Amino acid sequence: MADAATDAMAAVSLSDDLEPATSRTSIRSILANGAARAGERVVVGGWVKTGREQGKGSFAFLELNDGSCVANLQVLVDAAVHPLARLTTTGTSVLVEGELKKPPEGTKQCVELRVDRVLEVGEVDSAAYPLPKTKLTLENLRDVVHLRSRTNTIGAVARIRHQLAYATHRFFDENGFLYVHTPIITTSDCEGAGEMFQVTTLFSHAEKVEKELKENPAPSESDIEAASIAVKEKGDVVAQLKVAKASKHEITAAVAQLKVAKEYVSKLDERSKLKPGIPRRDDGTVAYENDFFKRQAFLTVSGQLQVETYACALSSVYTFGPTFRAENSHTSRHLAEFWMVEPEIAFANLQDDMNCAERYVQYLCKWLLEHCREDMEFMAKNYDKTAIERLTLVSSTPFERISYTKAVELLKNVTGKKFEKKVEWGIDLASEHERYLTEVIFKKPVIVYNYPKEIKAFYMRLNDDQMTVAAMDVLVPKVGELVGGSQREERLDVLKARILDAGLPLEPYEWYLDLRRFGTVKHSGFGLGFERMILFATGLENIRDVIPFPRYPGRADL
Amino acid sequence: MADAATDAMAAVSLSDDLEPATSRTSIRSILANGAARAGERVVVGGWVKTGREQGKGSFAFLELNDGSCVANLQVLVDAAVHPLARLTTTGTSVLVEGELKKPPEGTKQCVELRVDRVLEVGEVDSAAYPLPKTKLTLENLRDVVHLRSRTNTIGAVARIRHQLAYATHRFFDENGFLYVHTPIITTSDCEGAGEMFQVTTLFSHAEKVEKELKENPAPSESDIEAASIAVKEKGDVVAQLKVAKASKHEITAAVAQLKVAKEYVSKLDERSKLKPGIPRRDDGTVAYENDFFKRQAFLTVSGQLQVETYACALSSVYTFGPTFRAENSHTSRHLAEFWMVEPEIAFANLQDDMNCAERYVQYLCKWLLEHCREDMEFMAKNYDKTAIERLTLVSSTPFERISYTKAVELLKNVTGKKFEKKVEWGIDLASEHERYLTEVIFKKPVIVYNYPKEIKAFYMRLNDDQMTVAAMDVLVPKVGELVGGSQREERLDVLKARILDAGLPLEPYEWYLDLRRFGTVKHSGFGLGFERMILFATGLENIRDVIPFPRYPGRADL
Repeated sequence: MADAATDAMAAVSLSDDLEPATSRTSIRSILANGAARAGERVVVGGWVKTGREQGKGSFAFLELNDGSCVANLQVLVDAAVHPLARLTTTGTSVLVEGELKKPPEGTKQCVELRVDRVLEVGEVDSAAYPLPKTKLTLENLRDVVHLRSRTNTIGAVARIRHQLAYATHRFFDENGFLYVHTPIITTSDCEGAGEMFQVTTLFSHAEKVEKELKENPAPSESDIEAASIAVKEKGDVVAQLKVAKASKHEITAAVAQLKVAKEYVSKLDERSKLKPGIPRRDDGTVAYENDFFKRQAFLTVSGQLQVETYACALSSVYTFGPTFRAENSHTSRHLAEFWMVEPEIAFANLQDDMNCAERYVQYLCKWLLEHCREDMEFMAKNYDKTAIERLTLVSSTPFERISYTKAVELLKNVTGKKFEKKVEWGIDLASEHERYLTEVIFKKPVIVYNYPKEIKAFYMRLNDDQMTVAAMDVLVPKVGELVGGSQREERLDVLKARILDAGLPLEPYEWYLDLRRFGTVKHSGFGLGFERMILFATGLENIRDVIPFPRYPGRADL
Repeated sequence: MADAATDAMAAVSLSDDLEPATSRTSIRSILANGAARAGERVVVGGWVKTGREQGKGSFAFLELNDGSCVANLQVLVDAAVHPLARLTTTGTSVLVEGELKKPPEGTKQCVELRVDRVLEVGEVDSAAYPLPKTKLTLENLRDVVHLRSRTNTIGAVARIRHQLAYATHRFFDENGFLYVHTPIITTSDCEGAGEMFQVTTLFSHAEKVEKELKENPAPSESDIEAASIAVKEKGDVVAQLKVAKASKHEITAAVAQLKVAKEYVSKLDERSKLKPGIPRRDDGTVAYENDFFKRQAFLTVSGQLQVETYACALSSVYTFGPTFRAENSHTSRHLAEFWMVEPEIAFANLQDDMNCAERYVQYLCKWLLEHCREDMEFMAKNYDKTAIERLTLVSSTPFERISYTKAVELLKNVTGKKFEKKVEWGIDLASEHERYLTEVIFKKPVIVYNYPKEIKAFYMRLNDDQMTVAAMDVLVPKVGELVGGSQREERLDVLKARILDAGLPLEPYEWYLDLRRFGTVKHSGFGLGFERMILFATGLENIRDVIPFPRYPGRADL
């Protein structure tokens, strides 16, 4: 084979040369400098948003978008340069070269491209193209998740999402936090509750066994019996030869035969244990010792507990990664896979935690206003008139801070508005209550703190009143809860009692308790649901539209 | 309950007040300004690396580390301030306040902290502490993954890892790339091969069914028969009443009874189908329609195919996230869960791809030299003398570029060195070949391009010679292959043929083919194994030491 290949090599000329690199200019950079770039020669690539022939087919205008910004570049192509009909269909890709020109007075473009060379074209059969010119609803676009990034809305969301992720890393780096990659596959359950996805290789393991058994069925009992008899016979032969003082050569040969027979029996024994299906122990439970990690493993619901191990060593850390819930939720606010930002700070109490959350959220809002203005204007124009106002308000207004007890008191005194869920001290505040606090009562972000311990997780620090824990939620207009955090229980004995109170076993948390056994520190942290932040920023209504590839019950396209 | 809680509320004073925030100063910022800060009052928190009483127990020196840098702050505490024995044990946490002073002449510290208040202490029982003063090996530290971040080495790795992640986001943002979160749970298989982890809720589904059946066994056939007879009887009663022209009231009541009986039968029918174990179809295959996504789902092995959908709309994108391999590898170079950086660029050929990879790798090296100098010096001193040299070389030397055919030629002509695997045109280069090229022949990074199509994936662009594809690998000293990339096949017909040639079905790739059907563009991308990059930078030998929570066969701690 290798020789054949070498011969073939000699026969053809193998590619050693490389095409020269493309020096493409992004539309964003062209439009940012506007008319000042007139006269410059550029190569531009993108997809045609709309194209129209004009001047009786003597030239065409293309609105070209390359995803670098929401705006299109107007491109003018002469019929002499390229057959126009092949360029004007929506969705067509082109790589073109030409000169930037100031367009005629009175047009809205600040600059346009006069093409003199069409370098590449990727055509589109408009009848088959899944994105028709008539606008699809966001809901319909979810069925063409592989093409929807070509729409203005999903493109704008992608740029806003990028800027929010980037601003997150900048904020934490500027403040001395280290980014820690907490595990996706975990054998811990953060909340002691919550539906988790299981990660396994047992199905492929079972498939392999089943395939093997099909090709080569398990031995029957009589197969094994026959093989055992053979062993006995070979053994007898050896014994007889020894008694008969046979030659060394003869005995060695017989012993070798006995060995082969014995090996065959043990192989049959082994194979007789192979069973189709998921391996089970004698008591009927799944034999996870056959799984990849030799135990049950799950997809993480939060990196918090793990990131605490880094905070209790490196002081200020954060994790930003995917988290998972196997809940059968079909709402516009839930995903099976979503991204979370979770900072964790040593030597920090609840007040420090709130300060950090407030500064972080404000930083994000300000960042978007400064770095994503056009996309925000697009969202404001098409989806939520108040989107920019909201960012401005949140970025510039100190957050109100009230205790849970105070919040309940305020909500109980509300007149002229009936909540679906009655407000009583001890309830978990519902979205309607949270939004009323931030949107109606305070008209700005509100941090509610010191929640009843019964409705919060075991790791939150018990307050001196013995009834509340040092938890806090940041509530913002439009989405309600955006951030949830707490000071963590750093006292070993209290933490143990809280784990047991929650009905959980201590053993799986021994490593977590070790952080309190050895050099424990007060520490605090919070989680921000990244998609919630994007909903808050964009004003979009459905979380499935702000993540590139949404996963929810029954759907995991691509 | 709510009332009881309200009463209790009245009885205790609930916490409305918050502790004042801690204004802690990081050791990094203190040491960065050194002696210039003498005279300043600060609060510092950290963990004691070593502590020793001096002056016959009248004071103690603590070497304090807070993870912000590899260096410790020297802290001096008087016996009058705090019982010294409680502070000096390795691993003890302290939050202390005091004044920064210039230490006596001749000591190596540039500044030290004279403590006048000890605010918090987290003690350690040194006999029980899993990190003894005598250094544990990196291998032993893997058994205390929750505490190992307190060691100098793992702390330095965490800071280097952070800087590499941060530099990655900076590089791509500066170059107009958008960060796209590709899915973790996927129903596509990127390579058409590779062992994948399955994601499922079928085990918890089976557990629920089994529990339910235990509490309430499935109906027997005679139960169902009896219930069916009851339906017949109730039906007869209705019929008879109708014949007898009974009152509307009587008939309605009988119909209602019949309805109840029918519902009972259908409930029994339903329950009789409940079977313990994983649900199976009639043909014995697993009934994935009962799984969360109503089909088989897996953990991603690469975000490339999905991120291409964004590149073919937004031009320059990248993904940076966890990827998974369920391979039974116990080597020092493989993990079941690891992070990958995967840029994807539209309107870009293989040359553009190489340019991007070279600039990115150089940017990372330069970034570390500028932002992680002390940690790099620590690694050079303790693990790999050449680590800093290597970064300097790679950041400042243009990468050699040679075709695969040329590389094979060079390796075949090597004398005085025998490779374990014989070099022939057509083989997949092994690590020994890759390292020889970069370490011995060129003594700098090498990009090998245009590989035989047989050893590369279907999506790589077929060259005109019909024998090679436009693939490229970046090889660097110490680790060999650091980056693998290619120009993608943008021609619909060629791509289809390549999929079929690879023995794969077309149907699962229809969405991927759509990118070529509608406005196709030349595009290219690559993947950088993030942990490989850290191994390359630090000179460490085992990949399990450069990820916070390593996952490999049989191990998924925490």
